[in-house]
Amino acid sequence: MNDDPIYHVDGKLVPASAATVSVDDRGFRYGDAAFETMRVYGGTIFAWDAHMARLERTCEALSLAHGIAADDLRTRIDETLAANDLEDAYVRLSITRGVQPGKLTPRPNVDPTVVVYVKPLPRGGVDGRSVWDEPATVQTVDTRRIPSDAIPTAAKTHNYLNGILARAELRDDDGQPTADEALMFDCEDHVAEGATSNLWFVRDGELCTPTTDGPVLPGITRAIVLELAAEAGISFQEGRYDLADVLEADEAFLTNRTRELRPIATVDGHEIGGGPVTDRLSRLYDERVERACY
Amino acid sequence: MNDDPIYHVDGKLVPASAATVSVDDRGFRYGDAAFETMRVYGGTIFAWDAHMARLERTCEALSLAHGIAADDLRTRIDETLAANDLEDAYVRLSITRGVQPGKLTPRPNVDPTVVVYVKPLPRGGVDGRSVWDEPATVQTVDTRRIPSDAIPTAAKTHNYLNGILARAELRDDDGQPTADEALMFDCEDHVAEGATSNLWFVRDGELCTPTTDGPVLPGITRAIVLELAAEAGISFQEGRYDLADVLEADEAFLTNRTRELRPIATVDGHEIGGGPVTDRLSRLYDERVERACY
Repeated sequence: MNDDPIYHVDGKLVPASAATVSVDDRGFRYGDAAFETMRVYGGTIFAWDAHMARLERTCEALSLAHGIAADDLRTRIDETLAANDLEDAYVRLSITRGVQPGKLTPRPNVDPTVVVYVKPLPRGGVDGRSVWDEPATVQTVDTRRIPSDAIPTAAKTHNYLNGILARAELRDDDGQPTADEALMFDCEDHVAEGATSNLWFVRDGELCTPTTDGPVLPGITRAIVLELAAEAGISFQEGRYDLADVLEADEAFLTNRTRELRPIATVDGHEIGGGPVTDRLSRLYDERVERACY
Repeated sequence: MNDDPIYHVDGKLVPASAATVSVDDRGFRYGDAAFETMRVYGGTIFAWDAHMARLERTCEALSLAHGIAADDLRTRIDETLAANDLEDAYVRLSITRGVQPGKLTPRPNVDPTVVVYVKPLPRGGVDGRSVWDEPATVQTVDTRRIPSDAIPTAAKTHNYLNGILARAELRDDDGQPTADEALMFDCEDHVAEGATSNLWFVRDGELCTPTTDGPVLPGITRAIVLELAAEAGISFQEGRYDLADVLEADEAFLTNRTRELRPIATVDGHEIGGGPVTDRLSRLYDERVERACY
């Protein structure tokens, strides 16, 4: 993989440096686009069906009838991985509403723009190497998660300023980040999630995570961790929590596709750390990846 | 002006058909960009200073230090208008955070992408022709305006899905719009604004408009109408209103840059219409344009 990876744009393989979309594309003008972030382990896209199901839900929420079959999308990703000679990778798949006549109001006939981005990432599974070095430092921010009746939280879209504003709060005077992740609240002061991660904590042996009834993305890693907990007989609950619940926890961690499970070192300077439940779930997750992909 | 207008992208004049941005541009990946929509009357950009002031506030809200002087931006717009031989036009100016290393977290050093879009629009002022044919039909929608503590309402950004979702609610089974504008509520059930317009109504001779203390864009046309009302001795208030307040009104209208003042024919089928106050303010607005631009 060189400095100029090959992307897949609108049906063609192109060097990233030459990969463009029209300035009239609604993905650019309005962020009117759906996306998924995936991991490829040993040449296999992990949890492909779950990604396709969520992409479909996003596109339904946006009334974006792109008309492209999942197999076609998968072929584009496979071609991109092959062109970059990648077996272990990060993949981002974006589908926009394309260029349409008129202005804001979306039209039913869609000529979508499809972009596949790839980037090398380490091998996963039981012999894998983590993409993070240290447990995460987390800091609460003032920016609130967008309520689901303004933009459906379950939709993964190119409207990502909410998370960017949260992350921008973590800059010091020199512009350097003061923490790894921003912890966001909902409008009712419950902890919701990180800018790009779901939140978990362990209290008296019970695993807790904010419910997706609130403005919390139904993360695919989140769903897998809930499954693993159920299979392993780890008691868990999804609920609405205050910051104090997190600060008093025995263990805490974040999940997302890229970083899998990452222990939380501190929240606003309060030490929490991982622990036996976090370790066990991480091992179970690695085993799941190993079984699914190698 | 032909079918392929000339845009200004990243410092160069290019045909719209060839005007592109990198798929790695944060404006595309995340909608991480500011914009302004302007009208040009007789070769003069109307309310230029107000647009530059709002653009600066948007960029401050996004911590987007683009470093481009207002004069430079104006030169790009003037060059684009000249290249298209346009005296009366719609202009959209977009500034993105450009391509940056890393993922979501914005970096302080910005190499912005600047795009100028233009399109012909009729002459304005006292001899002008309206861009709309009929008073607007308005329909309330379920999609709520994003609260300002999630994304600052005063910021005009490429994160425009909230308005798109509102407009998408107006489609009938054949995908045709069932109304001209979607009227959105805030999360506390007060009327806020249209997807791309501010709302006004007249009750017992008093002009009313939702306060920008709520999630209501401080429209530049809105500010001008408030000024004109004050100058003309028309009593007005900015407040928080229920739908019933609007439905009982004697007159109602919408404002935005492109459509200026447009009377509201109906809200959810209830007839309201324009009237003497709407007509008077429209005339005063035309006179303001005439004085400023011709």
